[in-house]
Amino acid sequence: MTGEFALIGRLRRLIESGGPGSPDLLVGVGDDAALWRFGDRVVASTTDSLVDGVHFRLDIAGWADLGWKALAVNLSDLAAVGAAPRFALITLGLPPATPAGDIERLYGGMLDLARKSGTVLAGGDIVRSPVLTVTVAVMGEIELAAGTDWRSRVLLRSGARPGDLVAVTGSLGAAAAGLKLLLEDPAGAGARAPALVYPRLDVAPILVGAGVRTAIDVSDGLVADLGHICEESGVAAEIEAGRVPVHPDAALLFGPEALTLALTGGEDYELVFTGSEAVITGVAARSPVPVAVIGRILDGPAGRVRVLGPGGAELRLERAGWDHLAGDDP
Amino acid sequence: MTGEFALIGRLRRLIESGGPGSPDLLVGVGDDAALWRFGDRVVASTTDSLVDGVHFRLDIAGWADLGWKALAVNLSDLAAVGAAPRFALITLGLPPATPAGDIERLYGGMLDLARKSGTVLAGGDIVRSPVLTVTVAVMGEIELAAGTDWRSRVLLRSGARPGDLVAVTGSLGAAAAGLKLLLEDPAGAGARAPALVYPRLDVAPILVGAGVRTAIDVSDGLVADLGHICEESGVAAEIEAGRVPVHPDAALLFGPEALTLALTGGEDYELVFTGSEAVITGVAARSPVPVAVIGRILDGPAGRVRVLGPGGAELRLERAGWDHLAGDDP
Repeated sequence: MTGEFALIGRLRRLIESGGPGSPDLLVGVGDDAALWRFGDRVVASTTDSLVDGVHFRLDIAGWADLGWKALAVNLSDLAAVGAAPRFALITLGLPPATPAGDIERLYGGMLDLARKSGTVLAGGDIVRSPVLTVTVAVMGEIELAAGTDWRSRVLLRSGARPGDLVAVTGSLGAAAAGLKLLLEDPAGAGARAPALVYPRLDVAPILVGAGVRTAIDVSDGLVADLGHICEESGVAAEIEAGRVPVHPDAALLFGPEALTLALTGGEDYELVFTGSEAVITGVAARSPVPVAVIGRILDGPAGRVRVLGPGGAELRLERAGWDHLAGDDP
Repeated sequence: MTGEFALIGRLRRLIESGGPGSPDLLVGVGDDAALWRFGDRVVASTTDSLVDGVHFRLDIAGWADLGWKALAVNLSDLAAVGAAPRFALITLGLPPATPAGDIERLYGGMLDLARKSGTVLAGGDIVRSPVLTVTVAVMGEIELAAGTDWRSRVLLRSGARPGDLVAVTGSLGAAAAGLKLLLEDPAGAGARAPALVYPRLDVAPILVGAGVRTAIDVSDGLVADLGHICEESGVAAEIEAGRVPVHPDAALLFGPEALTLALTGGEDYELVFTGSEAVITGVAARSPVPVAVIGRILDGPAGRVRVLGPGGAELRLERAGWDHLAGDDP
C-alpha cells in the first residue's frame, strides 16, 4: 500500500477540491491540529488512534499506561499548535472478552493525565472490535487576549523561513532505546515499560510568548518531523548530529547507536521549533527544560532534511522515522 | 463481557468522580453529543466508530456507502441535540493491503454528504490496523441569537416529563428490513444495499423552534433509544404499537413482523422526541416529513418502556435494540 504521507497527500487534494470550505476553517489537513474559529475563540482539534500490536503491546505497556499514552499523544499535538486542552472524546474498540476491570484501569491512567492537564473527558463511543483500539479526539483552545490576531498565538508547521535556527526541547532517543531494549531482551533487567511522557503543554506557551511561530512534536522521529515542517513551509533544513541532545540513558545503553535512535526513533514528544536567533535565545532563557539549537532552515527542495556528521559530511540514515502504514512493527 | 450500557455507566461514574470538571462543560457523557461553551458559542461534539464485520460489511455496502454512513451516524447525533454541523475529523484504521483507490471511494462517499450537509473535513489520522475501522468525530454548533439561553435551543435526553407525548419523524424499519433481506437471501432480487439515509439535520431546527427540548436519534432501535431518554429523564414510557409508523417497504416484505423491525431494528436515524400536545402539534404543522404520535411519558421506573398491542396488552420483545458489545452480529 501507498505510505501514510503519500496517501494523506492524495486525500488532502480530494478534500480541498471536492469538499465544502469555510472561512472559519483557519488551518485544515496538514498540521498537528485543525484550527476553527467559533466567534472570538479559536478551537484546535486533533485525533490520534492507537491499535494493539501496531502502536502498543499490552504485555509491555499495561492498561493504565495505554490510557495515559492515548491521551498524551493527542495533548502533544495540541502543545505543537500552542493550544491549551479543554475536553476529549474517547472511542474504545473492544474485543469481546475484555474484562471491565482492565477497561477501568485504562480509564484510570487516562484520568491521571486528564487531571494533571485539566482535560475534561466529555464523551465518546464504545464498540466491539476484533482488535483493541483506543482513539482519542481532543479539543483545545488558542488563548487570545482581546484584539489579538490568532496568527500571533499559534505554532504551525508552515512558518519556517531560510535562516531560521532549528531547536528542540529536552532530549531525544529514550523512548526508542527503551523499546529496543525490550524487544532485544524481553526478560532482561532493563526490560520495563518506558517512562510515561508528559506532553510539553507547559513549554508551548513559552514558545508562543517568545515569538516562535513554527513547531511540531516529535512523534514520528526528529528527522521525519522536521521534514514535515520543511514540507509545509517549502524549505529545507540541516541538522548537526553533534548538537542533537541524546538522552543520557540511551547513550549509556547504546553508545554511538543512540544518535540514530534520537534522530529517527520517535515517540519522544518533545517540541521541535524554528525561529530567529533572538527568538530562540528568548525561549532558552525562559524555558523550564533545556533547549538545544540543532541546525538551521535553508533555501532548498521542500521537505529535504540533511544530517551532518562531525566533519560536515552528510550522514545516511536508513529511514527518517516512523510511517504508520509501513510494514515495520513497533 | 458486560453490555455496552452497563460499561458506559461504570466509566461515567469513574469520570464523574475522578476526572476534572469544568463550568464550560454543559452536557457530558450520557447524551447524543457533549456540549461545551466557548465564550458565547455552544459547541456540540460527538464521535462514532464503525468496525468491519461489526457495523458494516463491505460486500453489502461498498466503500462510498461506508464513507457516507460513517459521517451520517455522527451528523444524526448532532441533529439529536439540535446542533448544526461545522467540521469533522476522520480516523481510518486500514489493513495493510487496502488499495488507495478504495480509500478514495470511501472519501468520495463521505464528501458527498459533507457537501450536502456543509460539514468541512478538517483533519484526522490514518493508522495501520488488522481490521478496517472508520471513526469520525464531528463538531457542531448550537445556533444562538444574542442573549438566548442555550437551554432553550438544545435537544437533550434528560428533559422528558410525565404527561408528555412521544413522537417520531418519518417511518421506521426500512434499514432492518433491508439487512434482513440480504442476510436471508444474499443472491435474491431484493438483495441490494439499503438506501443511504440523510440525517434529520433539516428537521431538528423545526423541533427546537416549536419548543421541543427532548430528543434522540433512532440508532439502536426505537424501544432502546426511547429507553435512553427515559433513563436520563428518570421516567417511564408507553408506546402504542398500532401507532408506530412502519415503513411501507418493510410492511410489504415482512407483514406483521415488520412491526418488530420498526420497534427494535435500529439504524433508521429518525428523531424520537417528547413534548406537550401543543408543542407536538406545532412540530407536525411545520415539519417537511410526517410526524407520528406513538405514545406517552409516564411516572414510573426510570428507563422502562412498554409496548402495548391492539387490546392494550403489553407486547413482549425479544430485545429492545442493538447493544454494540453484545454477541449479535449485524
